[in-house]
Amino acid sequence: MKVIELKQDIFKENEVTADKVREGLKSEGKFMINVMSSPGSGKTTTLIRTISGLKPDVRCAVMECDIDASVDAVKIEESGSKAIQLHTGGMCHMDAAMTRQGLDEMGTEDVDVIFIENVGNLVCPAEFDTGAHMNMTILSVPEGDDKPAKYPLVYEVSEVVLINKIDAKAVFDFDDELVVERIHKVNPDAKIFFVSSKTGEGYDEWIDYLKERIKA
Amino acid sequence: MKVIELKQDIFKENEVTADKVREGLKSEGKFMINVMSSPGSGKTTTLIRTISGLKPDVRCAVMECDIDASVDAVKIEESGSKAIQLHTGGMCHMDAAMTRQGLDEMGTEDVDVIFIENVGNLVCPAEFDTGAHMNMTILSVPEGDDKPAKYPLVYEVSEVVLINKIDAKAVFDFDDELVVERIHKVNPDAKIFFVSSKTGEGYDEWIDYLKERIKA
Repeated sequence: MKVIELKQDIFKENEVTADKVREGLKSEGKFMINVMSSPGSGKTTTLIRTISGLKPDVRCAVMECDIDASVDAVKIEESGSKAIQLHTGGMCHMDAAMTRQGLDEMGTEDVDVIFIENVGNLVCPAEFDTGAHMNMTILSVPEGDDKPAKYPLVYEVSEVVLINKIDAKAVFDFDDELVVERIHKVNPDAKIFFVSSKTGEGYDEWIDYLKERIKA
Repeated sequence: MKVIELKQDIFKENEVTADKVREGLKSEGKFMINVMSSPGSGKTTTLIRTISGLKPDVRCAVMECDIDASVDAVKIEESGSKAIQLHTGGMCHMDAAMTRQGLDEMGTEDVDVIFIENVGNLVCPAEFDTGAHMNMTILSVPEGDDKPAKYPLVYEVSEVVLINKIDAKAVFDFDDELVVERIHKVNPDAKIFFVSSKTGEGYDEWIDYLKERIKA
């Protein structure tokens, strides 16, 4: 039986574009972070609190990527940060060319750090390099500690994993040690932070790490 | 706040390619059917029984589309039909250019009807015209009668909906009237057939419809 590999050129082309985006931003002293998660894991709340933790030293902007809604970008703007809404036109992920288009439209002269809030999906976004300097995944406690076993790629490509909604741990059967073990099985170098984006618990450690990382 | 529409050109370009694929096949007297569903709804079993119902008058081939597996194409081949495996390289849907590449690689000179077994996903495949003459969606009883309300687009673009696994209805709380009502709400013209691809129940009516449709 014949097996045809389609779209291999798409990935190669995307890698080249991603490297260009990454190097271009670096040469201007800017840092870009690609944030991935399931829908409803608290990406927007996490971004608002993270940006607030980086202020006033670091000027942040957010590119909100959704298939067609705009609610998240409005929330980010209301919190006082620069934001732009990108509609992916039916695509369930961002690629490097889309990222470049977003950066061009938004303008980056007045920002130091750009967050990409990727489409809520644990599969496709992990496959495409956006050109970011750092990938991070948010896993919320109600989603369960088995996600790193079921969707390994997104954890494999993430430098940072935030375990969010730890304030809700009393109500859910979520095993901290097991989730760390599962994440480290696919990515031994992953930095894992347990946080509550609602209460701010665990944020000091996460913000300290991020500040160092941006400087590096 | 700025809202940027990305990738609009992708859809326009895809529509042009899809029309060309559709017209090209029609001029050769061939008919193509795009089969969509969630993972696990019984797409492969449905194809094997449907193809068997069309034999020997109609020569069929299947293009199996998966992100990276090949098990379904092997099953189709074992059932005695022409099959080709397409790996979508991380893409969660087929588009018209990918379909054309598949048709070219497979060769269509010895077939009358081509089935595309699209990637198991109710969102992205519905957004992209593959160039098929007919879209169909399979909804299996264990998935629940609420799917047409939750994923309206795939039902809206489908000429035919097969409600599969009706042999399992005793164990599930599945409302036949409600599912028909929900499908017709988004697509009043949808033809709905209740079948069991395992036992063959309901197939006579479905195969009669399909034979007429291929001839038309």
